[in-house]
Amino acid sequence: MAIIVQKYGGTSVADAEKIKNVARRVAARHDKGDDVVVVVSAMGKTTDQLIDLAYQMSDQPEDREMDVLVSTGETVSSSLMAMALRAMGYPAISLSGAQAGIGTETRYGRARILSIDPKRIHKELKEGKIVIVAGFQGICEEMDITTLGRGGSDTTGVALAVGLKADKCEIYSDVDGIYTTDPRIEPNAQKLKEIGYEEMLELATYGARVMHNRAVELGKVYNMPILVASSTRDVPGTLIHGGTSMVEQRNKVSGIAADSDVAKVTVRGVPDRPGIAASLFGPLSDAGISVDTIVQNASVEKITDLTFTVARNELDKAMRLMEPLAKQIGAGEILSDVSLAKVSIVGAGMQSGPGYAATMFRTLFDSKINIELITTSEIRITCIIDESKVKEAVRALHKAFELEQAE
Amino acid sequence: MAIIVQKYGGTSVADAEKIKNVARRVAARHDKGDDVVVVVSAMGKTTDQLIDLAYQMSDQPEDREMDVLVSTGETVSSSLMAMALRAMGYPAISLSGAQAGIGTETRYGRARILSIDPKRIHKELKEGKIVIVAGFQGICEEMDITTLGRGGSDTTGVALAVGLKADKCEIYSDVDGIYTTDPRIEPNAQKLKEIGYEEMLELATYGARVMHNRAVELGKVYNMPILVASSTRDVPGTLIHGGTSMVEQRNKVSGIAADSDVAKVTVRGVPDRPGIAASLFGPLSDAGISVDTIVQNASVEKITDLTFTVARNELDKAMRLMEPLAKQIGAGEILSDVSLAKVSIVGAGMQSGPGYAATMFRTLFDSKINIELITTSEIRITCIIDESKVKEAVRALHKAFELEQAE
Repeated sequence: MAIIVQKYGGTSVADAEKIKNVARRVAARHDKGDDVVVVVSAMGKTTDQLIDLAYQMSDQPEDREMDVLVSTGETVSSSLMAMALRAMGYPAISLSGAQAGIGTETRYGRARILSIDPKRIHKELKEGKIVIVAGFQGICEEMDITTLGRGGSDTTGVALAVGLKADKCEIYSDVDGIYTTDPRIEPNAQKLKEIGYEEMLELATYGARVMHNRAVELGKVYNMPILVASSTRDVPGTLIHGGTSMVEQRNKVSGIAADSDVAKVTVRGVPDRPGIAASLFGPLSDAGISVDTIVQNASVEKITDLTFTVARNELDKAMRLMEPLAKQIGAGEILSDVSLAKVSIVGAGMQSGPGYAATMFRTLFDSKINIELITTSEIRITCIIDESKVKEAVRALHKAFELEQAE
Repeated sequence: MAIIVQKYGGTSVADAEKIKNVARRVAARHDKGDDVVVVVSAMGKTTDQLIDLAYQMSDQPEDREMDVLVSTGETVSSSLMAMALRAMGYPAISLSGAQAGIGTETRYGRARILSIDPKRIHKELKEGKIVIVAGFQGICEEMDITTLGRGGSDTTGVALAVGLKADKCEIYSDVDGIYTTDPRIEPNAQKLKEIGYEEMLELATYGARVMHNRAVELGKVYNMPILVASSTRDVPGTLIHGGTSMVEQRNKVSGIAADSDVAKVTVRGVPDRPGIAASLFGPLSDAGISVDTIVQNASVEKITDLTFTVARNELDKAMRLMEPLAKQIGAGEILSDVSLAKVSIVGAGMQSGPGYAATMFRTLFDSKINIELITTSEIRITCIIDESKVKEAVRALHKAFELEQAE
């Protein structure tokens, strides 16, 4: 008898009917003889509504109180799901993150899980119950409620699967799997049967917002297979796992990611001396601004141009911080551009095979798309291009790397 | 420096503006140098909405899950209140019932408080914080959330006041005090400056729904003064306390209570033999039906009529239970009447002075109001009368006992 952890996202439990539908799926799984642990997100837009309430109280709601507040969303879903299962005649019990033994660091709003103590869950499973766990929440050493950051219910699911030594963590939502690219951009996008953890991480970071990254990272560290599948339709999903054999045998580009939330800042005439980068990027980091790509041109006469990208909603803040800093170090003017996007090719096989970059650049060139910046990881190549060209770029690359062919 | 416990009801925290208003009042109290502990109810109709959701899941939502669900209402209010205070520059922290050390029996939906462990509250107060406690909720031995029954936030307030050895528990709501009778019925109703615990209990049980009864009982057991006052206006409220001197010096009827939620059942021709009452009322009690007044006529030839009253929404259930039982014991027909009401006079001084009953009966007689049943306690006399006459009865009694005169 296997232990199965299933996680259902917010749109899958958005109203009473949907919760009952999920309850039926969970019950069917329990009928098969598996021990089922279900992790639920908050109903639909509940979290947003709670956050909205908080901002009616305060311009800067305190993180600890925010966690007390927003964690109620998942608590509500968990109890409703348990009620729905009981109404169907199934023994079910809801547990809070604390009751499920999810211990976290004391870092409100985005706590990392430090420990899983599955005693209570094991006890309830032993009594034949279906256990419903409120996602997204944990408890820290001070016995205060913490939350795991947006999308944290995915992390709850994978962490519980690891802690319970489950066979698999199943993530159900309105997205039925991982595609070679966004099907709204490229209708020929194919659903992948499987994908490696690192490929998934690169795809997620670079635009394919299907799963919470930390959940994938956790899966990778503990080698816990994660199935991403539809919460409403019985169609095969995508298995994220660490097996290498499958990665080798496949077309070496797994998918194309695109992300239009890109703003570029260029600081001209930066003196090229030690410590300059730190003096510019330290204050950005202190202000909580996440800098993505950084490119420094080769220095000419100890003067260089420094370009970096940030999320668009952080551009103003970044510019305000940059201006006095640039003056201080004797740099020149600061330019910004918000009409940019990232397009990336991702594939585990890329690290062992040459020619991917060349194919990518030629494909973009053939489509008359100018490349502004380039960054790479071992299994990813990202080009920053004009935003107006992003769909065209995705389609051209999807074709060039033959992703429209079913696996 | 005194510890003050304040409780704010649901209508006082019904929306963002109202929560901020309460926060200003709490802050003003903190400015005076008191250690302030605030107990909050759920916002406005939140509890009803959550219960409604539960019944969308199940015809019979399980009590344990219901407690998990409805307790989120108070959790939300507590965090919002803490945010509002912090936005005003006051150190504040929200605590759940469990964090506030409210230990209860394992009896979901209507748990009694077994213990208060105020460690965490004392720690936070010592750090200069205003402590906001989610009302209505506790934690049982199994580490599950329990709730204290409707209106349980009052009980939370008084229990915390006792546990913290506070000077007083202040209950703020849209009701600014205890009146000699319902001012909507009798415009000359007077607000009482003070009232004894037992008088308050009798008034509350018999129609004056201002405070949760268990809260008053708790106040009585631990002799904790309870102030009932307005959450919005700075007018004197009513102090519920155990001092006897004030009770003596006052008009000996404190108030008139009325309650129209009365249904009467009469079982005719009941054989008058031992065990008959138990065989009729045992099943009612097992079915969770609360029987209020019971009157058994003097037996004539070992045959008697037995009359009792229940809440109206329990009449059908009571009748269904009664019919086979009546047959079984050889009783006659069963009659019911839903057009009844209770009117009561309450006063601590009544136990030492005669003539109250006579005055009450004569007053009703003079108003041509027929008395169907009579029950009494040491400090209360209740008459069951026709519902259509209840307002007239309240007004006549209010006048007869000279309650329109200010204290």
